[in-house]
Amino acid sequence: MNAQSAAPAPSLSSALYRQAGAPIEDRISDLLRRMTLEEKVRQLDMYSGATSIMSRHTDDTHAAADALFLPEKAEALWGDLGVGSVHDLNPAPEQANAIQRWVIAHNRLGIPALFIEEGLHGFDTGTVFPAPIGLAATWNPQIAQQTGAAIAAEARATGVDMILAPVLDLARDPRWGRVEEDFGEDPYLTGRMGLAYVRGAQGGSLSTDHTVVAEPKHFVAHGSPEGGTNTSPVHIGERELRMVMLRSFEPAITEGHAMGVMAAYHEIDGIPMTADPFLLKTVLRNEWAFQGFVLSDLGAIKRLYTVHHVAGSLADAACMAIRSGVDMQFYDLDHAPFQKALIDCVHNGTLSQTDLDRAVRSVLRVKFSLGLFDHPFVDTNLNVKEHRAPAHLAVSLHSALESMTLLKNDNHLLPLAKTTQRIAVIGPNGNIARYGDYEKEANGEHISILQGIQNLLPHATVTFDEGTSIPQAVAKAKDADVVVMALGEKLGISGEGFDRSSLDLPGNQQELLEAVTAAGRPVVLVLQNGRPLTIRWAKEHVPAILEAWYPGEFGGKAIAETLFGDNNPAGRLTITFPQTIGQLPDYYNSDPSRMYGYTDSNGRPLFPFGFGLSYTTFRYDHLIVQPPAPGSGADIQATVEVTNTGDRPGDEVAQLYMREDVGSVETPRRSLEGFSRIHLNPQETQTVTFHIPQKQLAVWNAEGKWAVEPGSYTLWAGGSSQATLTAQLHLRP
Amino acid sequence: MNAQSAAPAPSLSSALYRQAGAPIEDRISDLLRRMTLEEKVRQLDMYSGATSIMSRHTDDTHAAADALFLPEKAEALWGDLGVGSVHDLNPAPEQANAIQRWVIAHNRLGIPALFIEEGLHGFDTGTVFPAPIGLAATWNPQIAQQTGAAIAAEARATGVDMILAPVLDLARDPRWGRVEEDFGEDPYLTGRMGLAYVRGAQGGSLSTDHTVVAEPKHFVAHGSPEGGTNTSPVHIGERELRMVMLRSFEPAITEGHAMGVMAAYHEIDGIPMTADPFLLKTVLRNEWAFQGFVLSDLGAIKRLYTVHHVAGSLADAACMAIRSGVDMQFYDLDHAPFQKALIDCVHNGTLSQTDLDRAVRSVLRVKFSLGLFDHPFVDTNLNVKEHRAPAHLAVSLHSALESMTLLKNDNHLLPLAKTTQRIAVIGPNGNIARYGDYEKEANGEHISILQGIQNLLPHATVTFDEGTSIPQAVAKAKDADVVVMALGEKLGISGEGFDRSSLDLPGNQQELLEAVTAAGRPVVLVLQNGRPLTIRWAKEHVPAILEAWYPGEFGGKAIAETLFGDNNPAGRLTITFPQTIGQLPDYYNSDPSRMYGYTDSNGRPLFPFGFGLSYTTFRYDHLIVQPPAPGSGADIQATVEVTNTGDRPGDEVAQLYMREDVGSVETPRRSLEGFSRIHLNPQETQTVTFHIPQKQLAVWNAEGKWAVEPGSYTLWAGGSSQATLTAQLHLRP
Repeated sequence: MNAQSAAPAPSLSSALYRQAGAPIEDRISDLLRRMTLEEKVRQLDMYSGATSIMSRHTDDTHAAADALFLPEKAEALWGDLGVGSVHDLNPAPEQANAIQRWVIAHNRLGIPALFIEEGLHGFDTGTVFPAPIGLAATWNPQIAQQTGAAIAAEARATGVDMILAPVLDLARDPRWGRVEEDFGEDPYLTGRMGLAYVRGAQGGSLSTDHTVVAEPKHFVAHGSPEGGTNTSPVHIGERELRMVMLRSFEPAITEGHAMGVMAAYHEIDGIPMTADPFLLKTVLRNEWAFQGFVLSDLGAIKRLYTVHHVAGSLADAACMAIRSGVDMQFYDLDHAPFQKALIDCVHNGTLSQTDLDRAVRSVLRVKFSLGLFDHPFVDTNLNVKEHRAPAHLAVSLHSALESMTLLKNDNHLLPLAKTTQRIAVIGPNGNIARYGDYEKEANGEHISILQGIQNLLPHATVTFDEGTSIPQAVAKAKDADVVVMALGEKLGISGEGFDRSSLDLPGNQQELLEAVTAAGRPVVLVLQNGRPLTIRWAKEHVPAILEAWYPGEFGGKAIAETLFGDNNPAGRLTITFPQTIGQLPDYYNSDPSRMYGYTDSNGRPLFPFGFGLSYTTFRYDHLIVQPPAPGSGADIQATVEVTNTGDRPGDEVAQLYMREDVGSVETPRRSLEGFSRIHLNPQETQTVTFHIPQKQLAVWNAEGKWAVEPGSYTLWAGGSSQATLTAQLHLRP
Repeated sequence: MNAQSAAPAPSLSSALYRQAGAPIEDRISDLLRRMTLEEKVRQLDMYSGATSIMSRHTDDTHAAADALFLPEKAEALWGDLGVGSVHDLNPAPEQANAIQRWVIAHNRLGIPALFIEEGLHGFDTGTVFPAPIGLAATWNPQIAQQTGAAIAAEARATGVDMILAPVLDLARDPRWGRVEEDFGEDPYLTGRMGLAYVRGAQGGSLSTDHTVVAEPKHFVAHGSPEGGTNTSPVHIGERELRMVMLRSFEPAITEGHAMGVMAAYHEIDGIPMTADPFLLKTVLRNEWAFQGFVLSDLGAIKRLYTVHHVAGSLADAACMAIRSGVDMQFYDLDHAPFQKALIDCVHNGTLSQTDLDRAVRSVLRVKFSLGLFDHPFVDTNLNVKEHRAPAHLAVSLHSALESMTLLKNDNHLLPLAKTTQRIAVIGPNGNIARYGDYEKEANGEHISILQGIQNLLPHATVTFDEGTSIPQAVAKAKDADVVVMALGEKLGISGEGFDRSSLDLPGNQQELLEAVTAAGRPVVLVLQNGRPLTIRWAKEHVPAILEAWYPGEFGGKAIAETLFGDNNPAGRLTITFPQTIGQLPDYYNSDPSRMYGYTDSNGRPLFPFGFGLSYTTFRYDHLIVQPPAPGSGADIQATVEVTNTGDRPGDEVAQLYMREDVGSVETPRRSLEGFSRIHLNPQETQTVTFHIPQKQLAVWNAEGKWAVEPGSYTLWAGGSSQATLTAQLHLRP
């Protein structure tokens, strides 16, 4: 530490930055001018809770409760210059308070620490929600908002201030193991779900006891990695980047005011994300007015040197990242060399004071916004109320029920009669709740399909076979009135780092499915999985297919209620199912010049984006579009009548697609521009109204500028991306 | 026609543009100022020979010889305003002269027509050369130059002035049917082969009786279509475009002075190639000083309206193309509406006179360069000498022999003894010469594998089975001492428009191969095909594999001489063979952040770029690199010693790869920067010297400028892209 540059602090309690009522920007400025360079770079560094200042008991499932804060270790490791953030701790509230108290007491200016944890579809040992790919299948942003709010409440009640979610990458390559973390392939839907999640998590104010900073990631376009392998390069031009990839992030920042963003691992066109001032400064801060801080992904700064080879040393990498717009490292580099690198670079002029202060300001702004300077401690009684609160569990179940996506249902095999006597559940996903990545399967109620059916039908005979011995599985199938094939994936086959070069059912599952189907009993295929699978055979031969994704801790209950008719499924695919892996990439909003025929396949999707069946049926009529008065800047308004033409109540996801008929640049063949999930009783008709802000139609035009181009537009409304009911809009400037 | 604007022409014979000795640019200017708008737009239009002015006899194989020029049809269809070019005619020289005479006589200024035909790997009924992917496998630019020269000589002798070749797209997606037309996946190798072909075709002067205009295509990056389907969008940023895709074209333009370029069908990042002034004007003309004309691909202008939807009408499309840098249409639009559109656009100001004149000048420059104003007619005695001249046939055979690429040879199964008594040739490619696209299989000697072996071993018993009945094939295999499996592809499975979503052996070939291999006789797999195939099983189970690509009319002879040791194979792969289609794209010069592992595969190539075996072995020693003196701008010089360590003479393709260790942007893990095919006798050592111009190492840096970045570079020398002998270069500014 450079003691000479540290000014003494005679009367800190009266300092402007300590005044809760003062404007935040003034408080930041006041604090910033008091900080030494050494104290500043501390704010840009993340410290590990798990590996440094905690002693843990061996029972991993209750690590937080059994962990002890070790102030003497913190003293030795953290010193007295403060810490930017603490991660990987999942503290009990008492622990968070103890650590926070220590941190504040052990730095000259009393700057609090920021506690950051994961929160993708649940916090720590709290409520387990459906994985994002399942949440998106609800097409219900309200549930996304409730999920974000519930995760935030459970996290903040333990003293955690920020969660590393949502993931707003577009899942354009199903080989990629992280597809399950995404809201699918569409930028508009992802944008809406992401915004809702951020609004839920951040609430109206961050300075509460139940809201946290949300951190959209992985900025940007991480979901199109070359070869489908995690962290690989993304090949994309600026127009597609702006019109597709950035579009999924923009609402979370500009409307949701997310105060965190994580820069991704990959490079685009030779420039790694953590070294890209165009994205991190020009787009994020200048164009979008982002006010929070940019965190690097774990290892991403180090990779500038070790993988991308755009930095000549780890120190260069650190300075390059901050210079490019990153504000905090994810403990990539050891603390001392990271902080020394930044100090050296400021001294030798390769990192400007302006860039350094931008980073420090960003981190401090988040801390001030959270009220950490004014109310640094959590009410230790809160956790008991929030942890797995009944309202949160209800959101999880609701989300699971709404996410159920029926892909096939020949001859109304589903719903099954509740009077069914003998049910065989067969397959590796039958007797276990599959949660997907970023959750422990030990958490929550973990209701499996088997358990869900047994609970629902206590008097039926429900047998189970894992399917490792196929003759045995076939025998059990033959003994049943109906067979539920519980297939799909699990962590280790999907999840971060688990990319696949085949999308077929893994292991022996295809063989198992064919053998059991040949047994001649009615078969329902229930998939729990993290990505689209090439289930062409199943589509041809299995009468009913239910896509459940990873449906959270009540997944088995939601599946059972769907199979037996208590829940009428209305989930819709948010990602295209290809026929074969050889037709990738396959996403609905390709440009019209994308060709689909192969010599050996028509190359069409097996199941298209937006698709999903119901136990009832729907009809669309009278799509009418109201052009805004020229010059008014008003929204475009479109209405369509949706009628439940069947004999059961059910939800329908009304979808609106549009395209500019002629533009200055080529644009997707159709793009989702509105959707609404509605409930309709038999024979009921509702008029759905879509409001489309004109700027939503802006293109990055041939001159490299945003423009809403006048002219004609085609609209389609219906229940999938293959909707055929059309209308025409003539938009005047 | 607008007769009023056509000025009378009293003394044309003394006009400057008619003076053969005057500078070409002056002649163009003189002619241009005499031309009416109607005459100008005529020069931008291509006319079909086949469908308009010729009467054809029914014998399609000798269409040209049997065709009759119909002046009265030309009169009716072409009028008296001239024609830009005539295509799809393949005239006999007398016909070309008759048409040319008629055209010159029937336009006021006597502007000759330009005859354009295909010439990818042979002209019309002339010599059939190996397909480009096979030619590239020779790694011998001299053969490319000889091929270009031979095709040019055969073409020009019939009156044809320009050929639609070479194809310089990088074959980065093996699903794409046009991979066979490419020189492979590497920009440097493609650039060298393309330059050589252009130099061969264009010679030292175009104003000869044996040279033609070469027309590199498809400008640019056509070989990375989304989904591997022809004409689909290409997703790429400017840096990759410049450093990879444009690099394959640049030598043909800047060093080879190719006078034609074909703009491709696809779009990049929303901008179709025929509507891209950045590529067609900024890069091609301003940066590269291209002097020839840009031709649209057939239908590409129409697609601006019908597919890309960036033009509101066909007329808009026509004007947009010329405005963007296209100079001639490939008879997309009917003549009258195309020409009227341009005239209207000039009148209403949406097409500038400058752009129109640029296009006309470009076409006229090509015609003047060819000497068509001065010597418009071909010597009708020349064709007999040039058509399938022995020297051309020798080039074809030489190319085929040098292209043979040995992928596996366990226990020295190859070469086979010439004393072998019973040989079974089995498979659909055994009794037919596979030429690939842009050639008729009726042309040339069409020597099949069966014929080649029979010719070489007249006393052996050579049986054949097509393999449609597998038991019969197995029976024949069992009767043989050795089995040659003649598998692969054919036109209709590969070729333009024949994209595949599987890269497995087509039809029943895998089953056939497995059954025959199981018969227990030694099996040699000979592939004739247009793209890499996923032959993982064969690599594991078949002792010897020879990749022959589409080897031209002497292919069977070249294969036989290779199998039986008269030719020691030294072809090298110019495109990566993947293990499975699920790991695409797979090319050696990916960036270092491309990750390769999958849960179900290591994702590594089955056979890497640059790979190929020999009947002898080679060793590399002493890679030494000589840095240029700082500031000298001199070439980098590297030397390596190559020794034939076996007991047979043979060729080796010494390859040099480089990478910048740390750069301002991420660059490929290694890039081919030099190669040399050398012949070595047993135990002979040669020192191979590579000269690498410094500018060859330029990167489009983080500031968007070309720069040769000082610092350290790693070099690798060896016999494939996995070469391990390294050296280090320290480059100073």
